[in-house]
Amino acid sequence: MDEISALINALRCLPGVGPKSAQRMVYYLLNNKRERGMVLASCLQKAMTKIHHCSRCNNYTSLQLCDLCNNTKRDPSLLCIVESPADIHAIEHSQAYQGHYFVLQGKISPIDGIGAEDIGLPKLQHVLLDGAVKEVILALSPSIEGQTTCHFIHELLRPLHIRVSRLAQGIPSGGELEFLDGNTIGSALRYRSPY
Amino acid sequence: MDEISALINALRCLPGVGPKSAQRMVYYLLNNKRERGMVLASCLQKAMTKIHHCSRCNNYTSLQLCDLCNNTKRDPSLLCIVESPADIHAIEHSQAYQGHYFVLQGKISPIDGIGAEDIGLPKLQHVLLDGAVKEVILALSPSIEGQTTCHFIHELLRPLHIRVSRLAQGIPSGGELEFLDGNTIGSALRYRSPY
Repeated sequence: MDEISALINALRCLPGVGPKSAQRMVYYLLNNKRERGMVLASCLQKAMTKIHHCSRCNNYTSLQLCDLCNNTKRDPSLLCIVESPADIHAIEHSQAYQGHYFVLQGKISPIDGIGAEDIGLPKLQHVLLDGAVKEVILALSPSIEGQTTCHFIHELLRPLHIRVSRLAQGIPSGGELEFLDGNTIGSALRYRSPY
Repeated sequence: MDEISALINALRCLPGVGPKSAQRMVYYLLNNKRERGMVLASCLQKAMTKIHHCSRCNNYTSLQLCDLCNNTKRDPSLLCIVESPADIHAIEHSQAYQGHYFVLQGKISPIDGIGAEDIGLPKLQHVLLDGAVKEVILALSPSIEGQTTCHFIHELLRPLHIRVSRLAQGIPSGGELEFLDGNTIGSALRYRSPY
């Protein structure tokens, strides 16, 4: 059972996979999905070794520049600042944005000693140097560190005369008021729009 | 995003993994578990190519005979018949059994044209030929096909004077009567034991 136990253990590196589901996965693959298991092994191996950060925006890519930075059809005047490549994936999925991105390497947190240089702000300044970007959209999470970081970026961009906006706060699509938290309802009231 | 989409797709071959959790897994591995991702890829690759069926009991193994068949400390007079290698795993986990196993290649189902030879009963007879086995324990699921198969094996073993038993039916450990189905409670009453 050695290879089987090793595979059960290895599968537990995946988030949300405990010993029981790992075991179910192993027997499922062995019973009738060996070819797909082999495809998974090779995709994993490729992704883990080949994917690194885009030299311009820090998105994940296997190339020098990622597909989004390379895409000349996208609007170069918009730059959306996010916390992680997964956030880019989510925004792209919405099909509501056609500009470029910049992925921060974390959030400013003076308590943990994380400053502007640690999260890659010099690189952001470098990206903004060519003058193509007219508006920066802050799409960070509304945590204290996120807000600190937004504030810092805002100050940083002030002398460059670049418009700075942030994602709207309010009730989510399909959200039922009854089940929303007080902060969300508070924001939705504060930022209410004319009907 | 090519390698990432390919990996998200490939992960969906795992049971219980949909597009959202596959995406979460990929970004989780890329962000901070690349080494464990590589280990998973190599374990998968090894398991998918090296594991086949034990030549004696049909359990999964990478050797000619599986660890259980090779283990001389196990009781050769007991043979437990199960439906799948995963069932062996479950029984071993209980630490309540020290005999050998035999994995059927399915269950007899006349409607689907699956007979005794298709599920490997000739091989079972061959295993029983050396006379070491004194008792066969039927551990098949209590479906109609399972019961047909049990009946058939019982008939097959009658001339060999081998004791045939089956797993007890009754209420599961920790089961609350209130939530058990009628068949289970019926079996528990029918096979009640003196207190």
